[in-house]
This record gives sequence, structure tokens and C-alpha cells, in this order.
Amino acid sequence: MSKIRLIALLSGPDRPGIVARVSGWIFERGGNILHADQHQDPEEHIFFQRVEWVPTNSDSPEKCEAEGNAFADFATRELGMKVQVSRSDVVPRIALFVSKIPHCFHDVLLRAQAGEFHGEVACILSNHETLRKSAESYGIPFHHIPIGPRGSEERENSENEQVRLCREYQVDVVVLARYMQVLSAELLQRLEVPVINIHHSFLPAFAGGKPYHQAYARGVKLIGATAHYATADLDEGPIIHQDVSRVNHRDSVSELTRRGRDLEKTVLAQAIRWHLDSRILVYHNKTVVFH
Amino acid sequence: MSKIRLIALLSGPDRPGIVARVSGWIFERGGNILHADQHQDPEEHIFFQRVEWVPTNSDSPEKCEAEGNAFADFATRELGMKVQVSRSDVVPRIALFVSKIPHCFHDVLLRAQAGEFHGEVACILSNHETLRKSAESYGIPFHHIPIGPRGSEERENSENEQVRLCREYQVDVVVLARYMQVLSAELLQRLEVPVINIHHSFLPAFAGGKPYHQAYARGVKLIGATAHYATADLDEGPIIHQDVSRVNHRDSVSELTRRGRDLEKTVLAQAIRWHLDSRILVYHNKTVVFH
Amino acid sequence: MSKIRLIALLSGPDRPGIVARVSGWIFERGGNILHADQHQDPEEHIFFQRVEWVPTNSDSPEKCEAEGNAFADFATRELGMKVQVSRSDVVPRIALFVSKIPHCFHDVLLRAQAGEFHGEVACILSNHETLRKSAESYGIPFHHIPIGPRGSEERENSENEQVRLCREYQVDVVVLARYMQVLSAELLQRLEVPVINIHHSFLPAFAGGKPYHQAYARGVKLIGATAHYATADLDEGPIIHQDVSRVNHRDSVSELTRRGRDLEKTVLAQAIRWHLDSRILVYHNKTVVFH
Amino acid sequence: MSKIRLIALLSGPDRPGIVARVSGWIFERGGNILHADQHQDPEEHIFFQRVEWVPTNSDSPEKCEAEGNAFADFATRELGMKVQVSRSDVVPRIALFVSKIPHCFHDVLLRAQAGEFHGEVACILSNHETLRKSAESYGIPFHHIPIGPRGSEERENSENEQVRLCREYQVDVVVLARYMQVLSAELLQRLEVPVINIHHSFLPAFAGGKPYHQAYARGVKLIGATAHYATADLDEGPIIHQDVSRVNHRDSVSELTRRGRDLEKTVLAQAIRWHLDSRILVYHNKTVVFH
Repeated sequence: MSKIRLIALLSGPDRPGIVARVSGWIFERGGNILHADQHQDPEEHIFFQRVEWVPTNSDSPEKCEAEGNAFADFATRELGMKVQVSRSDVVPRIALFVSKIPHCFHDVLLRAQAGEFHGEVACILSNHETLRKSAESYGIPFHHIPIGPRGSEERENSENEQVRLCREYQVDVVVLARYMQVLSAELLQRLEVPVINIHHSFLPAFAGGKPYHQAYARGVKLIGATAHYATADLDEGPIIHQDVSRVNHRDSVSELTRRGRDLEKTVLAQAIRWHLDSRILVYHNKTVVFH
Repeated sequence: MSKIRLIALLSGPDRPGIVARVSGWIFERGGNILHADQHQDPEEHIFFQRVEWVPTNSDSPEKCEAEGNAFADFATRELGMKVQVSRSDVVPRIALFVSKIPHCFHDVLLRAQAGEFHGEVACILSNHETLRKSAESYGIPFHHIPIGPRGSEERENSENEQVRLCREYQVDVVVLARYMQVLSAELLQRLEVPVINIHHSFLPAFAGGKPYHQAYARGVKLIGATAHYATADLDEGPIIHQDVSRVNHRDSVSELTRRGRDLEKTVLAQAIRWHLDSRILVYHNKTVVFH
Repeated sequence: MSKIRLIALLSGPDRPGIVARVSGWIFERGGNILHADQHQDPEEHIFFQRVEWVPTNSDSPEKCEAEGNAFADFATRELGMKVQVSRSDVVPRIALFVSKIPHCFHDVLLRAQAGEFHGEVACILSNHETLRKSAESYGIPFHHIPIGPRGSEERENSENEQVRLCREYQVDVVVLARYMQVLSAELLQRLEVPVINIHHSFLPAFAGGKPYHQAYARGVKLIGATAHYATADLDEGPIIHQDVSRVNHRDSVSELTRRGRDLEKTVLAQAIRWHLDSRILVYHNKTVVFH
Repeated sequence: MSKIRLIALLSGPDRPGIVARVSGWIFERGGNILHADQHQDPEEHIFFQRVEWVPTNSDSPEKCEAEGNAFADFATRELGMKVQVSRSDVVPRIALFVSKIPHCFHDVLLRAQAGEFHGEVACILSNHETLRKSAESYGIPFHHIPIGPRGSEERENSENEQVRLCREYQVDVVVLARYMQVLSAELLQRLEVPVINIHHSFLPAFAGGKPYHQAYARGVKLIGATAHYATADLDEGPIIHQDVSRVNHRDSVSELTRRGRDLEKTVLAQAIRWHLDSRILVYHNKTVVFH
């Protein structure tokens, strides 16, 4: 399918007629809407929409780019919306941050290889050398950036390096695939792209370190995993996706850890997929996911 | 909320601009769209839409009725769609068909009582007296209609009686809550309203009688339940909803039966809810469920 | 099946040979083991067992009672275990505590009526009159005990009345079916029987009041329910069972509440069933559930 | 943990005292039972048991081997059971049969690498060259065996080669990881080891080819995967494990296929794990899984 599609995500103050005006604008300019989904927060009176269409001149990247810009202009000025438009022929670029734990690392790369994502892994950044050889077998550039203690000059240097590489590789999103370092508020800001994290518990239960140990100690009957956007408040960012798995009294911490790996992989992969497909809008520390 | 809403379900040949024309029509006449969801079958080129809006004069049932008719006219003539419009202030009426098994019967009535359905149970028809007393404690009229053998005059009489009562009670949908009789093709046609059935297996596995016995004999590790519209082909109608529950080698047929009851209740209730909320479109023996 | 079965729950310090000695004791006295399941906590070195058998003279309640006592003696003295033995022909008696919310109330009573529990509801105690008529339609005695403010004489009187009625009805377990009052530590102690509560969240997330509001505010993608034994620390008791249901950004608090009701019903019912079948052992604020 | 454990799987005609005699035999010879689980088929009067214990001299493979043999002798002669005993220090060897589809292939190998299985992949046999390079990056021998048409001499030769390699590598179990060839009854017999297959549907629904196409055509609301032992009757063997995933009208066949891959991976991995841990007994085309 060589036709370029445009995908717009809109949000802003709700008022009558937005759906009609958006679809009218597209239709009048010869576009064909493939999907349109919207949501209203009835208490906050906020309107959210995801609309995907084939514009006229759908074989010309330049003209599609111009049409996307025209739409953004229209929606901003005339509808008072915040808008983000993406083109289906532009493949988003991912920076994968990893440490030593390999399961999410392999899972993301194998899915990327299998074509499961509308995106490509541009580079891998790690605070350890452990996964270098594996990274190279996938043919993805691997950069080892040791992380110094908080507040040290070393730490500042490594953050500079992380920012530099993400820019160099023109990264659109950072994925923390069980990356065992907290990103500082400053680093998050400087990266200028969304950062997706996977936490190995059903948040808000068992935030912080060693969630499987916490789950074992409390004697819960389900363990979970949560994919969320990273924010300055650790484990407090907007939740994208969650899932759980049943456990019982026989399951040791190491069994919970093993079972949890399957959850972490599928939950993180789903969050990445939705993000790359421009299906997620964030507001008030929550997400609207159009799926 | 005293404002009347209109809900339209459309389906028909896909072509550009339908979304824009539908939302434009509503907007120009002063309506405010609350929800709009659509789907295209990309192979069959069929367009489906559910749109829910507050028309002007939303406090007048008569004017809303007229507006719904005007919309139906527009969508039929100008868009070539099949349309069905319903008004939020009109409460659909259910005929509940039961036999002796009580769990779905109680479940539907308690949910209706709790306000979970946009609908009310108008009457209960049964081929046994078993549940009469319970039915009366819910304050719902109960009619005992014994069913004779197929082809007998008795059977014809009972079908006449079923049709007569459904008309008398102005029924909009029939729910078979573990009703242990097959409805003939002729009866289905004469009822002139949709009929929702609950089958106690994960269809198409274990169609026909005694599905829990079949599941036990095959040694499956999950049992299921399926809500579907009844058609002349038993257990072959369009599937609305399905769910499963994990079982193991320790579970006898009676344990499967007990576990299955919980599935049957929740799956049937969900199907009824979606139907009453005008969320379901049927085509090619499949369903589009806008939820 | 007229044969009486004995069910023993054992726990105590682990050491080699317990399984052999328990099964040997039963076998030598002519008993036939139907089920035996055990568990070791490998860190705490605690042994847990549930064993179910048909003793000789299985048609005599008196002789079975004596055999159960002999087993308890043996396991206590010779194996150093804590033991609890129950007879299959003795039906446990439940006191159901309710307030105004009806769904768990109806669910427990309908399941009891359908024979889903090895137990019977002996009485219903409520701090409101709301469910009296329904209770009476099930043929179960209903007692209205208004609850005064904490520390008041009224409160003391109502606790006295609750204790008195549970004794009068010879209650073996108390089930809080969305009973909207906290049981004081003193009352829990005086009741002298286990108390099962249903909390409408996935504990430890969203303990305390209004969990669906908390879940909505945090933007979680799954809601849950937790059945646990009530302890002096509210929502901190040993967890028996948990389940979750998927939700999304469209679900309002009232929709979460409706969806949650189904979870609360099935989770509470499962916990009651396991408790009545003598499948649960508590230690260190956790449960071992032999199922 | 250097202590050797013995695991016995028993099955045979049920009669009183088996549990006592098995545990007594182990205890008297100084063994310490870690886990014991049993099951009776109440209709067929068959007894099943899995027992895991540390024998005396648990640091000597030879003495443990002898003790296992002694147990097998005892259980066969004195209890009339079919027995299979395995030693925890003996690592089972897997032959992985693959074609071109990579997801189950990678999944099994990464899990093996991560230590998730009590077993090692000894060799990979494929009817295509596609996965050779990947296989070699895992350091596992890869053999390409083209498969001729049924009844041809070529086919006979390839079956001979498959049997020869499985013997040469001393394989204990064959895993068909989306191997796109049917194994003939004769080949299954000659392999002399169990063969585990993953079928990409919720059996018995959608047996045979293209199950995701079948699922799409029927309009089911859940898709599934089934791991089973391969038998001469295709897709009719004893079911080990099953799971499902929710789908809706928007999901195309290719989306079902992508979603299904996650199911196939986890369901197959679980079946392999249970098999390698000696947790599965087969009878009457069903499985008893002690987990």
C-alpha cells in the first residue's frame, strides 16, 4: 500500500461541532477518512480525537507534509486544539535504553525485526557492556555510557552523552527496557521526546524497588506489569497499559520474577506499538488510548 | 439528565465523505455529537457507523422523533445506508424466555432491577412452571407455555402464543436465558425482533447439546460461553460476546457446570447491555460491536 | 453420597516424614485418602497440609467425630502440628453482614440456594432496614442492628448484639457482603470466628474508602477486587483471592462501579467456597489455599 | 543446591493405601518428600501421583539412580503402577523442529538461554535453511532436512534422517515450534520420545490449516492457542495447555496472526516447562498436569 496516510491527534476545550468541522475540512479538500475516534472528558470538558485519512496527492511526501501542516494550522487556529500530525511514510526512530537484563531487550528487537512496530530501533544505549554482543548480532549500534552517582560530574557527562546520542540518531521516542537507572527530571526535559518505561508491578501497588519481593511479602494472588510515560516522579507517570498474571502460595520470588518477565514483555511491546501508531494522548497524568 | 439523545446505527457501501456528511448534517441542524464510532470492512467495502447526539429541542420527544426520522431519511436517500435510529427516552422491552435453570434468569432480573440495562423486562415466558414464584417476587408477569413435539399441533399453538404475547407486551428483543428449546426458523421470523441466546461453550467448539460433557471428554483446559443472535441454524448465529475460564484435570462435569454458570451470566448480560445500547450491527453472520 | 469424609488442615515446623506418618496413620486405621496436598515454606521451614479421607465407620457421625479427634490428638502430640478437623456431614453456618448495597447479598444467597456452597446462611445482620424484604423472600432471618458512632454506648450495644446473635445462630464464619462499617479489633476478637471481607480494589492498591474514585483519578487500566480475612488493620488482612477487569479512558466512575460489582461477586463467592471447603490456612498475614 | 532429587510419576488402578505406601517406602529408606500431589479419576478408578523427594546419598548420582530403580520396582510390583522416575541432575535434551516462522523458535531458545527450562536444546532440525544463521548465533547445531511428498522415497529418507539425528543427539523430547509438516504415525512411533506441538487455535475449534482465517470468517471474539502431544490424528492429541486473547471486528487476519504469536509463544513455553519438570501424565487422550 503506497498511499500515504496522515494521522492527527487533537485535544482541547470541548464544544459542539468539532467532529463535523474536522471531517468537513478533510472531505472538502478531497481526503478520505479511514478511522476517526474521539472522546470527551465529561467533567473536564476536554475533547480528544484521533483521525487517520488519505489526503489527495497521497503519493507525494511533500504535498502530504504540506497538507498535514495545513490541517494543524486549521485545528489550532479555528478549533483551538493542540495538534500533532504524523505521516505514515515517516518511520519513527527508537532509542532503546538497557542495562543487563535481557528479556525486554530481545523482545523489542525481535518484534521490530518481525515488523510488529511502525518504527525502527535506531540505537541502543546501556550503562553496561553486557548486551553489546547481542545488540550487534541484531545489527543495531550499541553505546556504553557508564552512569556516575547522582550529582557527580560523571553523571552530568553521561547525561550529556545520552542527550547528544539521541539527537544524533534523530530519535523520536526513548524506551526504557528494564533500564535500571532513574532518569532525572532535567534529563527527561532535555531529551525532548517521550520516554516509555516498564515497571514490574501493577501500579500504584508496589512502586519503587524490588516489586516482586514486595508482592511476595504481601501475599497477593496476582502479579502485574505497568507501562507508563516516565516523569520526574518515579513510577507516577501516566499509565499506558497494564496486565496481570495469577500466582499462588507456591510461587517463590524467583518464580514471580520469571512469570513477570512474560508480562513485562507483552505490556511494554503493546505500549510501544500504541505510541508508534499515534494512539495515545496524555492529560492530567492519565492517558487516552484510541485502540 | 433530561436531554434526549438520538442513536443511529448505519451500514452500507463504503465511499469517501460519509463521516463528514453525517457529522455535517447533525451539526448544521444544531445537534451536538457525543459519540461517533465507525468501521470499514476493507475487503467487503462496507461502512458501519454508530453516532449518538443531542438534537436541538432535546426536551421534546415528538421533535426528537421527527429529527430521528429526518436523519434516517437523509442517510437512506443521500448516503445509501441502512439505518436504525433509537431515542434515549424510549426504554426497550425484553421478553425473557426461561425453562427450569435459574441462574441466568435471576442474573438478568437483578441487573434490570439494579438499573444496569437501558431496558426493562416486560414479561417472562417459560415452558415450565418452575420459576413462576420467583418471577412474581420480581413483579414481572409470568406465562407458562408448554411446548409440544416438533410438527405437532400443540407446538403450533405454543408458537402462536409466544408470538401473541411478544406482540401484546410490545417486546423489542427476546432473551433466551438458558431456554431449553430450539426456536424454529418460522418462529424466529414471526417474532420480528432480535433473539439473543447464551450457549454454554466457546463456539464453534462444542456446539449442540451437553457442551460441558463434551469439554470434559476432550480434556480442554479452558471452558467458555458464547452469546449470539439466534438464527435458524442452531449455535451458528452471529457471535456477540465470548469469555472463557481456566479448568484442569480435577474438574468434574459438575464442577465445569458450576464454573460455567458464572461465565454464562456475565457473557449474556454484556450481550444484552450492548444490544440495548444500540451498539451492535450484524453482517455476514458476524457482528460489529461499538464499545 | 452418604459416606462421611474427614478433612484435616495441619501446619507446623517442617521435618522429614510428616507426609508418610499422616498417610500411614490414616491407612493403618482403615481410612481411604481421597485428596492430600501439602506445601512447605522453604524459608520459614513451615509445613502445611490438607488431607481428606473416608474413615472406617464412615456412616456413623459419632465414630467419625471420634476418629477426627483421635487424628487431631495424634497430629498435635506426635507431629507437633496445629490441627483443625472438619466433618463433611456438618454444614457450616454463615452470618451475612450487609448494609444497603444489594449485589453481593443476592449473589451469596442465590449461590447458597443453588447448592454452590458447603454451608448455609443462618442469619443476616444489617445496619439498615433496606434489604429486609429481600432477605425474607429468601426465608433467612434478618436482624436490623443500627450502629452508633465509635466509642459511644450505642456502638457497644450493637457490638454486643452482633456477638450475641452470632452465638445464638451458632455461626462458624462471618461474611461481610459490602458491609459498610469497620469491625473493631475488639469485635473481631469477641466473634471468635473468621470474618471474610470483600474490598473493591486490587489490594494493596487503593486501600481505604472510594477505591473506584481513586482508580479513576490515577488512570489505571485494570480495576480489581480482593477477598481477605478481616483483621484489626483495615484492608491489611491475609488475602484469599483477587481478580481484575480491563477498563479504559471511556469508563466513568459509575461504569467502574458497575463493572466492579461483577468482580466483587465472583471473588467473594470463591473465597467463601474455599473457606467452607477447609482449603485455607493463614500464616504471617498470608494464605495457603489448597485448590 | 547440589542435592539430587528424584521425581516419580505413577499411574494405575486406584485402591486404598497407595499414598501411604509410597510415602512410607520413601520415609523408611531415609528419603525426604518435597512435593507430593495425586489425583483420582473417580469414574475410571485410576490413580495418578507425582512425588518428588531427596533420597539418602543425595550427592551420589549412582546411588540416586539405584534408588530410583528400586522405587520403580516397588511401585510396579507391589502397587501395580506404571512408573517413570527422573533425576534432577540429568538435564533432558530437546530437538527443536522448525520451518521458516521464527517467533516460537527465538522464544524457546531465549528461554533456554535464560535458564527457564530444566532442559537444553540439543539440536535444531528444519525443512528450510531460513533459520540457520540465527540458530548458529545461539550456538546450537542446525540440520536442514528437506521433506519430500508423502509416500515418496525422499520422504522416507528424510524421516530416516530425523530419527537418526534424534538418536545421535540423545534427544528426550521433540518440540514442534511452528514446524509446518505433519509427522506421520510411523515417524512418531519411530522417534520413541514424546512430541509437543503448538496449534494456533483454541482446539477443538479451528483444527487443520489456517485457523486464524477460520476464526476471522466465523467472527469469534477470542482467539486461542493450544499445546498438545502430537499423535497420528492431527490436532487430536492430548491437550497440555491453552490460552486465549480477546479480539474484535477491527482485527484483520494479519492482526489476529500477530496477536496469536504471543499466545503461541507463552502456551508452548509453558507446555515445554511442565513436560521437562515431569509434571504431565497422559491417559485416554487427556492430560493430568500437576502444577
